[in-house]
Amino acid sequence: MNVTGEEFRTIWLKADDPAVVQIIDQRKLPHRYVICDLNNYTDGVVAIKEMRVRGAPLIGATAAWSLYLAALEARDTCADFRSQLAFIHSAAETLGNTRPTAVNLRWAIDRMLSMLGAVADIDVLAERLRNEAQAICKEDVERSRQIGEYGVALLAKIAEQKNGEPVNILTHCNAGSLATINWGTATAPMYLARERGIPIHVWVDETRPRNQGSQLTAWELARSGIDHTVIVDSSGGHLMQHGQVDICITGTDRTTRSGDVANKIGTYLKALAAQDNDVPFYVALPSTTIDWTISDGLRDIRIEERSPSEITHITGLDGDELRVVQIVADESPVKNYAFDVTPARLITGLITERGICAASEEGLAGLFPECAGRSA
Amino acid sequence: MNVTGEEFRTIWLKADDPAVVQIIDQRKLPHRYVICDLNNYTDGVVAIKEMRVRGAPLIGATAAWSLYLAALEARDTCADFRSQLAFIHSAAETLGNTRPTAVNLRWAIDRMLSMLGAVADIDVLAERLRNEAQAICKEDVERSRQIGEYGVALLAKIAEQKNGEPVNILTHCNAGSLATINWGTATAPMYLARERGIPIHVWVDETRPRNQGSQLTAWELARSGIDHTVIVDSSGGHLMQHGQVDICITGTDRTTRSGDVANKIGTYLKALAAQDNDVPFYVALPSTTIDWTISDGLRDIRIEERSPSEITHITGLDGDELRVVQIVADESPVKNYAFDVTPARLITGLITERGICAASEEGLAGLFPECAGRSA
Repeated sequence: MNVTGEEFRTIWLKADDPAVVQIIDQRKLPHRYVICDLNNYTDGVVAIKEMRVRGAPLIGATAAWSLYLAALEARDTCADFRSQLAFIHSAAETLGNTRPTAVNLRWAIDRMLSMLGAVADIDVLAERLRNEAQAICKEDVERSRQIGEYGVALLAKIAEQKNGEPVNILTHCNAGSLATINWGTATAPMYLARERGIPIHVWVDETRPRNQGSQLTAWELARSGIDHTVIVDSSGGHLMQHGQVDICITGTDRTTRSGDVANKIGTYLKALAAQDNDVPFYVALPSTTIDWTISDGLRDIRIEERSPSEITHITGLDGDELRVVQIVADESPVKNYAFDVTPARLITGLITERGICAASEEGLAGLFPECAGRSA
Repeated sequence: MNVTGEEFRTIWLKADDPAVVQIIDQRKLPHRYVICDLNNYTDGVVAIKEMRVRGAPLIGATAAWSLYLAALEARDTCADFRSQLAFIHSAAETLGNTRPTAVNLRWAIDRMLSMLGAVADIDVLAERLRNEAQAICKEDVERSRQIGEYGVALLAKIAEQKNGEPVNILTHCNAGSLATINWGTATAPMYLARERGIPIHVWVDETRPRNQGSQLTAWELARSGIDHTVIVDSSGGHLMQHGQVDICITGTDRTTRSGDVANKIGTYLKALAAQDNDVPFYVALPSTTIDWTISDGLRDIRIEERSPSEITHITGLDGDELRVVQIVADESPVKNYAFDVTPARLITGLITERGICAASEEGLAGLFPECAGRSA
């Protein structure tokens, strides 16, 4: 994806000030493209909690960068190395509690904390953490790109049977560049298809209540010149019944070792419709979103409940102004479940950076034997 | 339902002026309770097209009342009875083209037109049409109430197994009082449960893009003191996976003689989730929504496509003001399918004014042999 003319990133170190991390305030898209400074780890906590950044890989990367900022803060505010380390550990704990569902958050924090050993100087440590955060981002881009390679092969195969008609892809929420560092997971195959001249069209689920589909996925697809259409979340079944969807590709916030997938609320309904209409249903994920410690997604994945205000209020453009309006009356209670679990049985395949596998313990263990072994 | 202290109606003849029909402007709910005058049949056409009134039975009733208004206009503007009749027929044609999916519209218009024979005086005819529109409304209330009786028996049975815990009902869109003349179809069993002390709780699907769930169903349930919770359309599957839904009840805009159901977009997804989780899925309907001429709903029911602006813009409260904000960027195309078809195989039963039957040709023919015979 290309927004500013440079290689796109969703999080980066400020060009002229390496004590500041920058992000795009995704709550303002598509209406405003606003860049925010993270000056300390608390800014990172707030950015994750308020969903200025979201998407499992980007949440992880933001936590990683926040721990680098915590090291700088520790250097400036704590008397000795021991209290500096304590400060960083406390920051890690706070960051770990920002969002409950995405497993990348835990993964990124653990990886950053593993840098804390065998160092006795905060400057050296800060440098290490900075390099590690950068490595996490660089690897994420590579993983996304690899997911794209495996996914685009699926699209190319479908395209062969369509005589030049576009391949119709349905996606839910934003598993796009904006959810990762670049390329995205579900969108990576789309961007590569575009590069390689494979004609595609994307049905973009609005994705209530936060509308990451109509506001983020549509934004990035438009910027990349990819043909797309926004639909309400309820439309996918109808489209599949009428042969308007060739393949579904979504992302995931947490995948169990048996291939159950926690993703944005409503993913399960699309998977049911795909099964009912013989539409292949794929989930694209970097291995960092696999939680090898659990098997039964319905039982073991904690589903975040978010504020009712995400449903009762909505932000939109009124002329040139961004305005919040209330769309549910005060008298009606509201419940806001952020994710649901799609059982492995409904998933045609998992598209990972190492290839495509069945959504099953055997499938994942085949691609990631070193992780599967560790969890047993 | 009780709003003003009087027996609730969604359409009625103005108390002090029988040349005016009144409706509630449902686009303003739940924020404003505004009554509108229909002064001529064109006002009726606009009210249906702009969805000031909606819901299959109420659309039919509005068309009926509009033909009465057309007769008054014909009396005042046409020179002779022949041209008066031509005027009414032309009004009927325009009314018939307002919305494509609801079959009650056609049914109500045909019934009104059948009054045109064997009269030669416009005053007598107008009187007849007025009586017929009144009869259509009265019968609709009776049918809704009967649907309520059969439906509440289902709720009572579930309640027996819940040890005083409320029966959790999920409904989609508004098949409520506001979709009919009073009582509603899907809501009639809920209102009777409330009257009879059967504890219930209703999960109200928001129902994008027009939010008839969060804005109309929630409004009428709140007014009747029925415990309810608004959720986004994507939530139902998650709730069913976790045992939070005991029964689904929706309405329908058109039902084929084999029991396929066209209803608000997204109904099909809920029916799939209900099947996947062994939750009974019922559709409540007056027989006026059965289209005996067709069998295969997916093939034969024309699905209305409505304006993209229903998805790209939304109305809400900003302080005391109603304001429209834009929530999808201009650059992204939008498609707005209003209904989908739920195949009979996913439906546990149809709750009609004559009882509950299987969603099948045999089931419906058993309850309505006189209609089934006619269509064969």
